[in-house]
Amino acid sequence: MDSIKVFAPGTVANVACGFDVIGLALDAPGDEMIIRRSEVPGVRISAVHGADLPLEASRNVAGVAVQALLQKLEDPKAGFEIEIFKNIHPGSGIGSSAASSAGAVVGVNLLLGEPFSRKQLVRFAMEGERLASGAAHADNVAPAILGGFTLVRSYRPLDITALHTPKDLWVTVIHPQIEVKTSDAREILKQKVLMTDAIRQWGNVGALVAGLYQENYDLISRSLEDVIVEPIRSILIPAFHELKLRCKEAGALGGGISGSGPSVFMLSKGEESARKVADTMNQVYAPLGVDYKIYVSQINTEGVKVIG
Amino acid sequence: MDSIKVFAPGTVANVACGFDVIGLALDAPGDEMIIRRSEVPGVRISAVHGADLPLEASRNVAGVAVQALLQKLEDPKAGFEIEIFKNIHPGSGIGSSAASSAGAVVGVNLLLGEPFSRKQLVRFAMEGERLASGAAHADNVAPAILGGFTLVRSYRPLDITALHTPKDLWVTVIHPQIEVKTSDAREILKQKVLMTDAIRQWGNVGALVAGLYQENYDLISRSLEDVIVEPIRSILIPAFHELKLRCKEAGALGGGISGSGPSVFMLSKGEESARKVADTMNQVYAPLGVDYKIYVSQINTEGVKVIG
Repeated sequence: MDSIKVFAPGTVANVACGFDVIGLALDAPGDEMIIRRSEVPGVRISAVHGADLPLEASRNVAGVAVQALLQKLEDPKAGFEIEIFKNIHPGSGIGSSAASSAGAVVGVNLLLGEPFSRKQLVRFAMEGERLASGAAHADNVAPAILGGFTLVRSYRPLDITALHTPKDLWVTVIHPQIEVKTSDAREILKQKVLMTDAIRQWGNVGALVAGLYQENYDLISRSLEDVIVEPIRSILIPAFHELKLRCKEAGALGGGISGSGPSVFMLSKGEESARKVADTMNQVYAPLGVDYKIYVSQINTEGVKVIG
Repeated sequence: MDSIKVFAPGTVANVACGFDVIGLALDAPGDEMIIRRSEVPGVRISAVHGADLPLEASRNVAGVAVQALLQKLEDPKAGFEIEIFKNIHPGSGIGSSAASSAGAVVGVNLLLGEPFSRKQLVRFAMEGERLASGAAHADNVAPAILGGFTLVRSYRPLDITALHTPKDLWVTVIHPQIEVKTSDAREILKQKVLMTDAIRQWGNVGALVAGLYQENYDLISRSLEDVIVEPIRSILIPAFHELKLRCKEAGALGGGISGSGPSVFMLSKGEESARKVADTMNQVYAPLGVDYKIYVSQINTEGVKVIG
């Protein structure tokens, strides 16, 4: 096999109470990438369609992620060329850089005959995240590679576990096309939090994980509550509180800010409910004079997928 | 049925990272209680064996819990007499008051033909906890009544869920017979915690719950970490750090302070490991000149049980 085409999913990190630890993968939007073996050792980005991103491998997240993989491979001859079709807007808060990093390492690994497990690939893709945001975080690349819901328990040592994903769980995402810088979103967070809030948050995290395993949609709904980060970051997102309230009235289980925003996600039981939530998002955002996109998607339980 | 004998289990609250939210039930130690129907309306405590506790119903946790139940029943004629055989030392940190409250309401409910579900009974037993500690907490009465591991997501509204309990999980508990007042143990806690510590804690809570559902003993082991409460409260417990270190060297998955102490619990995979941990606890505590008791127990997945 000399070339492969993969779908690299968008992802929602910071799933409500699960700030910095719980993420999930989407079926839409996602990038597509064609990865070809090359006679020239190393990695080159041959083209990026749909976004203005660097072609120089050491400045491109996909390039950096594959370089990290090739270093561990110790085969000086291995060479790859990557063509990227971006559908996930950079800066949308739905894991644009993670998709490119994840798709690239999964694709290269497949062409190499899978010397690494999917879990091992997470570490390489994290190098792409380091380039994109300055921090090698895993909360987007883990679900992008492993699929479904994932939990990052710890970074030192890196400890990631895939969580059970109920079949009937759908996601509606609205991407208001405004700019929220991850660094700004991080700066406004407090360094200390109230013990009572922290306890409430970890009660919710425990309940969310239990709800996923029990396929208990009511429990999932009740535990989709973030008392620590959302009250602060939501000020960066137009009409956040009305949006959330109206979506829950329309039947959403709950949701919150996707990643560090500006996208907002809502979980629903079933496609019909997820589409109703999309209509509601439209109704709330149409009068605002802000450009936006809305996506309705099942949870992607496979992560990066081969599509050709 | 005019009388019933029940076993009311000891419990471990504040299971490591799960401070204030995760508890578990033990097979040993536990109290026994005989509950008899009576012609006289209301509840009386006929005797307490093995501990010096009030017989006056309104000052006895079992009495208060049953009074709370009878109020909801609205049958002015219902009357019960309770005889309590205490095996769990009051003040041990393994849910002595919770066992009495839980055993009493489960027993009375059974004699009444089960008008209430086990989950509904938790609320009544919490009134016993309010008498014992001033706060109607549920982290001991929930596992005592429901069995296994339980999670208290929220108090307003009360939201409790039973978690999956892996079959081969054992508990070793050491009760150093010193006094640690719950109020003192609570007072030394900080009102604010570092955001980074809080995130680490809820990552561990999520992973512990996932580990229980996955029956993944390694993940359970890695997530039994409390970076917030244990570093402060452990100063109240003789040789805590040596004890924990030696138990883990002996094969324990991990553990921590039981409730607000002074008891310390360790989880193990399998009985053999749990007994080795008990031996190690003995070795550490024997030279200290402190009286202590050690219990080895499987996790009790039934909660309060009928034994006669």
